[in-house]
Amino acid sequence: MSERITVSQAAEILKDADRILILTHQFPDGDTLGSGYALCRALRVLGKQARVICNDPIPEKYEYMIDGMEEQTFEPAFVCAVDVADSRLLGEGLEPYAAQTVLCIDHHGSHRDFEKNLVLDAEMGATAMLILQVIEELGVAVDTAMADCLYTGIATDTGCFKYSNTTPLTHRMAAQLMEAGAHAEPINRAMFDIKSRARLALEQQALQSMEFYDGGRVAVMKITEKMMQQSGAAEFDLEGLSPLPRQIEGVWVGITLRQKADGSYKISVRTGAHADAAAICGLLGGGGHARAAGCTLSGSDEQIVSCLREAIYTSVPRLAESKR
Amino acid sequence: MSERITVSQAAEILKDADRILILTHQFPDGDTLGSGYALCRALRVLGKQARVICNDPIPEKYEYMIDGMEEQTFEPAFVCAVDVADSRLLGEGLEPYAAQTVLCIDHHGSHRDFEKNLVLDAEMGATAMLILQVIEELGVAVDTAMADCLYTGIATDTGCFKYSNTTPLTHRMAAQLMEAGAHAEPINRAMFDIKSRARLALEQQALQSMEFYDGGRVAVMKITEKMMQQSGAAEFDLEGLSPLPRQIEGVWVGITLRQKADGSYKISVRTGAHADAAAICGLLGGGGHARAAGCTLSGSDEQIVSCLREAIYTSVPRLAESKR
Repeated sequence: MSERITVSQAAEILKDADRILILTHQFPDGDTLGSGYALCRALRVLGKQARVICNDPIPEKYEYMIDGMEEQTFEPAFVCAVDVADSRLLGEGLEPYAAQTVLCIDHHGSHRDFEKNLVLDAEMGATAMLILQVIEELGVAVDTAMADCLYTGIATDTGCFKYSNTTPLTHRMAAQLMEAGAHAEPINRAMFDIKSRARLALEQQALQSMEFYDGGRVAVMKITEKMMQQSGAAEFDLEGLSPLPRQIEGVWVGITLRQKADGSYKISVRTGAHADAAAICGLLGGGGHARAAGCTLSGSDEQIVSCLREAIYTSVPRLAESKR
Repeated sequence: MSERITVSQAAEILKDADRILILTHQFPDGDTLGSGYALCRALRVLGKQARVICNDPIPEKYEYMIDGMEEQTFEPAFVCAVDVADSRLLGEGLEPYAAQTVLCIDHHGSHRDFEKNLVLDAEMGATAMLILQVIEELGVAVDTAMADCLYTGIATDTGCFKYSNTTPLTHRMAAQLMEAGAHAEPINRAMFDIKSRARLALEQQALQSMEFYDGGRVAVMKITEKMMQQSGAAEFDLEGLSPLPRQIEGVWVGITLRQKADGSYKISVRTGAHADAAAICGLLGGGGHARAAGCTLSGSDEQIVSCLREAIYTSVPRLAESKR
């Protein structure tokens, strides 16, 4: 069990630290990278050595976060993790650091302790909101680059202020970051709007695969290796596809099956107010947030869908009733 | 030429008025309806008689704005328009009121004067932002219903805080409206996420029609009467389709051609930082905002596309150069 600490206690610990290694989660998203690079930049303003590492390459669309940052190589003396809900999410390359992690800053309600000290606030729509508070406690002025990083984290994790995890504080922080120079519109365009033609083709194939169950309350969309090859889509083209099934009228539980190279499936579950995605995925060895969670399953398509539906019936008795 | 007045002057005029008829624009959207119903509710709190009218039926998804409002019938003594950029946009049924309009509150840079007094602020992402200020000047506390209306106006006109017309003030007002009880998440889900299966089918057909010109800088998507019939989509299923062409990587000017029953085409033009949609449509007898504008054209598909491309070359010389 980690020590639960406040944002200002975290800032005190960071003030005393140097040669800081910042861990982000695997398959990095806007929040883990935005949190990591904003914190790294703030620590460097304080004259500290700091760098961000990730198990996977950083997708091109996030590269602006690193613009103008010099490379620093040093033997880490302090390990900090951001937006990492579970040591396993560090990915194979970074898991050895889990036991050395002195501080983790996270917003996942499903967080599993692995660090010495933990700042956890599941009311925050994004870890970047906590990082903004940490930077303020460090007494560092948020510059344009930090603002871009933090805005990205907040916008991506709240679906551009659309999801239920958006609060008045989320909007106020967005206002503050825009005033600090965040390039909100180009960031949003890059994160939410721009699709490659390959992505467009993949999306169309995926939508055509959509199947409905339980009177249209459950929608399942499939993304196969074959679709990836036919469309010419890359891994990063998958982002933003998993919300689609839940966006169909009447759907309570939207599921995306993503076939992996080894034949297993990465499952993404999205829900509205009527179902808890983290609870459903928790029954299958996964986890996440109430409205968006995931797990990994192996088997035939039919087996996987039936397995998911059983978990849904257990978690959402009203759907089980409609089945009978 | 109308008298340009401030928000507080508009509030003073409204304080002296009664039996107030509030005009919204035809083919109503979230901003004109949200502005109209929020203002109407605030005026009723002051004990005044007020009602909102529109040339067209109110789409079902906006019906929550009217919940719990009693019908009021009265002979209008004061006519006010909200979010109406041009008297022609009142629609045939309401145009007779244009000459009687004492006050218009609007945010369209392309506004054409038709009213006696005009509050115009093109810096505001939505007319609803001006209405919030008017309500505050009226001394009325924003209740949950008004907050829902105003939030809807702001969210829909800024693409849920995604477009370049979003400012720190937009976010602060969203925070304020959430604190006043706005049901942000269900509103956003209804406005942006939920698609009927018919809409999904229409979207797929429309995307398949997409053609690219000028090295992929111009994208044209077509929505025909036949597609509408085949997909079973209704008029309101069209909302949110016009941004799609500009969302393809590399596209500067995204165009949607919507075939109307008489064979003519309603054209929607969306642009990024490199082109001005209002300028392009202005050359063709239309208008709108810098990033989103429209016009109506008749002719064959080829004629219309060629006509649009000429207007684009005139307005965006860099594209004309790439053509040569």
